[in-house]
Amino acid sequence: MNAPGQLSHFVPKVTQCVVPTVMLDALKAHFGERCSTALVVREQHGRDESAYTVPPPAAVVFAESTADVAFAVKLASEHSVPVIPFGVGSSLEGHLLAVMGGISIDVSRMNQLVSINPEDLTVTVQPGVTRKQLNEEIKSTGLFFPIDPGADASIGGMSATRASGTNAVRYGTMRENVLALEVVTASGEVIRTGTRAKKSSAGYDLTRLMVGSEGTLGIMTEITLKLYPLPEAISAAVCSFPSIEAAVRTTIQIIQMGVPIARVELIDVNTVRMVNAYAKLSLREEPLLLMEFHGSPAGVKEQAQTVQEIASEFGGNAFEWATTPEERTRLWTARHNAYFAAIQSRPGCRAISTDTCVPISRLADCLLDSVSEADASGLPYFLVGHVGDGNFHFGYLLDPNNAQEHELAEQLNQSLVARALRLEGTCTGEHGVGLHKMDFLLTETGSGAVDMMRTIKRALDPKNIMNPGKIFRV
Amino acid sequence: MNAPGQLSHFVPKVTQCVVPTVMLDALKAHFGERCSTALVVREQHGRDESAYTVPPPAAVVFAESTADVAFAVKLASEHSVPVIPFGVGSSLEGHLLAVMGGISIDVSRMNQLVSINPEDLTVTVQPGVTRKQLNEEIKSTGLFFPIDPGADASIGGMSATRASGTNAVRYGTMRENVLALEVVTASGEVIRTGTRAKKSSAGYDLTRLMVGSEGTLGIMTEITLKLYPLPEAISAAVCSFPSIEAAVRTTIQIIQMGVPIARVELIDVNTVRMVNAYAKLSLREEPLLLMEFHGSPAGVKEQAQTVQEIASEFGGNAFEWATTPEERTRLWTARHNAYFAAIQSRPGCRAISTDTCVPISRLADCLLDSVSEADASGLPYFLVGHVGDGNFHFGYLLDPNNAQEHELAEQLNQSLVARALRLEGTCTGEHGVGLHKMDFLLTETGSGAVDMMRTIKRALDPKNIMNPGKIFRV
Repeated sequence: MNAPGQLSHFVPKVTQCVVPTVMLDALKAHFGERCSTALVVREQHGRDESAYTVPPPAAVVFAESTADVAFAVKLASEHSVPVIPFGVGSSLEGHLLAVMGGISIDVSRMNQLVSINPEDLTVTVQPGVTRKQLNEEIKSTGLFFPIDPGADASIGGMSATRASGTNAVRYGTMRENVLALEVVTASGEVIRTGTRAKKSSAGYDLTRLMVGSEGTLGIMTEITLKLYPLPEAISAAVCSFPSIEAAVRTTIQIIQMGVPIARVELIDVNTVRMVNAYAKLSLREEPLLLMEFHGSPAGVKEQAQTVQEIASEFGGNAFEWATTPEERTRLWTARHNAYFAAIQSRPGCRAISTDTCVPISRLADCLLDSVSEADASGLPYFLVGHVGDGNFHFGYLLDPNNAQEHELAEQLNQSLVARALRLEGTCTGEHGVGLHKMDFLLTETGSGAVDMMRTIKRALDPKNIMNPGKIFRV
Repeated sequence: MNAPGQLSHFVPKVTQCVVPTVMLDALKAHFGERCSTALVVREQHGRDESAYTVPPPAAVVFAESTADVAFAVKLASEHSVPVIPFGVGSSLEGHLLAVMGGISIDVSRMNQLVSINPEDLTVTVQPGVTRKQLNEEIKSTGLFFPIDPGADASIGGMSATRASGTNAVRYGTMRENVLALEVVTASGEVIRTGTRAKKSSAGYDLTRLMVGSEGTLGIMTEITLKLYPLPEAISAAVCSFPSIEAAVRTTIQIIQMGVPIARVELIDVNTVRMVNAYAKLSLREEPLLLMEFHGSPAGVKEQAQTVQEIASEFGGNAFEWATTPEERTRLWTARHNAYFAAIQSRPGCRAISTDTCVPISRLADCLLDSVSEADASGLPYFLVGHVGDGNFHFGYLLDPNNAQEHELAEQLNQSLVARALRLEGTCTGEHGVGLHKMDFLLTETGSGAVDMMRTIKRALDPKNIMNPGKIFRV
């Protein structure tokens, strides 16, 4: 997945911490073969889906238990060495990069379901469980976990970045769906941040503080999630529109009318072409909305009818339905493959993804101006969006060896973020801040809020060893 | 509302801070007549709905703007004097009590809607706006704010305690419904914790950290909330059952089947009698569920049908419907008046309210054992519950001058909390920790999590002036 070229001016300026031999020896003594200093392993853990290139971590340990994680963190704390948790490596913002050196703690082998409580609609998992694995393992309960960021990400990574995706318009994000956590703190202690009760007013909301903290405050070792009954009826539909504006205005009205739509995704005409070519589909080459309705048979019918009426007001074509599970899977796979389809449309290219999210009434303004700007730039791009939430992604397709194109993409992104902030939105709806959006975060929240984050970070991680160098400069 | 007697052994042991004259003079110079040291005003701000009695604050200032709050906090910080924000005084846990002295900042005059964005389903309010006022002022938009803790609490107070109430089973709690905040920090700075975007991964979730922090980390001066379209159809129904167990088992099945019921409240037979006497109603004298369904006309019908089938399986009687808004209001007013009805049932008594919340599958175990225990004690009580969330409240009705009864109520509460924690629940579903539940919090989360809360508190409020002495001992 990593492009061959390197965006050299994208490398953050960093001070690399040296991991002392005594610490490496202690890790090897504890982890045995589960501690690796092989370059290939370190390199695999020293990159993600972002465009950054930095030196890999000094070692990788493969944790198999909370005790393993606590051991590694305690040792790292003694030696003031950075630790970076690693799930499947699907971050887009450089979260996993060892910008200050240190070690990577791979939790992908912590992939057990700790307990399933179908009667309470909850499950507790280890952080290395991926969302597809989770849904596979709970299939027999008649329940499902709806959060779907596209990639088959780990639940730990999704929690750490406050991920969301296509179903969030109905089911919320990781913010709403993580009930409680077990966390290894910066000193290597193990704490619990909540219970399985559906709601609680018991002190500070440490769960929500950890969710989205990108590994900078602690490492999640158990995650209790909400589950949902599989809807009695599901149907998916595609509707194409004469313009992006028509598709967006349809979406705005669906949301404002309170239709409990489960998914409403925009795909622009560029991306439709790419997806058709990649997945051998024959979607009509127009901007389209890909939708899904969940509920009782009557409820789904009612929702679909309302949406169809709204769509036709804006010139939308008749719905094309995907009623069997196979058809639905094919459609959503196409959506999830938009990224890969786009990458393949320009061989050797690398995609830089944007992630703005604005209040729904501002979506048309934000999106249309950004499309005009991107079109005028001449840079190829794809455009997909969780438009029901006001969240969309441009993917600028760069020749990684072309500094000018890179500069252009950066300019487009900056202009887009500035526009989203003017419209009371955020620079990141679901990818997180990581390395790339530190300055955007500062502009968005102001120095007062970032100072508060920094104060919390310093208090909870005084040695600055928990995934340092991310979100803000300490 | 305060009972005549005092529960003297309930007074927390505290060190009272002396407010220096120079600070009082500066407050008077800034606030003029909006700064009061009159005993009656101070006493009114030195108590809430809890059973504690402590000396009142040294002064009360009536803030009319964020700048007023910032001024008072900055001054308090200079003099290391505690500040306690005050909305309408409906806390049940002693949140508003000046246990370490200091001044009360009354925000009830900050009662303006700052901006309404109906097209985005958001509103930004000042903290002194009450929930009824909010719904009154946005009536013409076709939207409503669902969180309803019973009391006409201020939005500031509801946010600070992470309140919820009868509608939470469908719409969530303040945790899910506060989008962003403006906060005056312990140093008197003004920060913003988010935007109006529906979701965001932009750094630490300061919004959720502040929600439920009970005034100990900052004072909220603007609150951005989610709103919802008024349902096309609403219907309410009462169903009585042969036993509490039958009512609870019905609720459990409703939730497990994923019925999107908007309200499902349990009222035990004691409380039905009290409510009938108080509100001149003729509810059947059996345990009952009070329910509300929101949706399209067809959706509401479908939900009601499913629930009726479940109820009849457990011996529930036929639904009695309240279809007109007037009938619904009468029914829900009766529910909300349960507390007052209970108080009146034993003249001169005081109610001690419990607030446990357990996973729904544990609800029957938790509730039935606790009912047996309460019955065996001989102490009069009322029992109501937001049972769809696994949350319920016993109100033990004490003679405030009878130490033995008080001891008994404490024992019952301790036994109830211990039971709820064994069943993976929480000591407080919606009232907050305040003064009374500090030890319960410690048992519930363990010292590691409370240490983390304390570390955050010390970092963000190094002088310990923000509503000190609440949630945990610093």
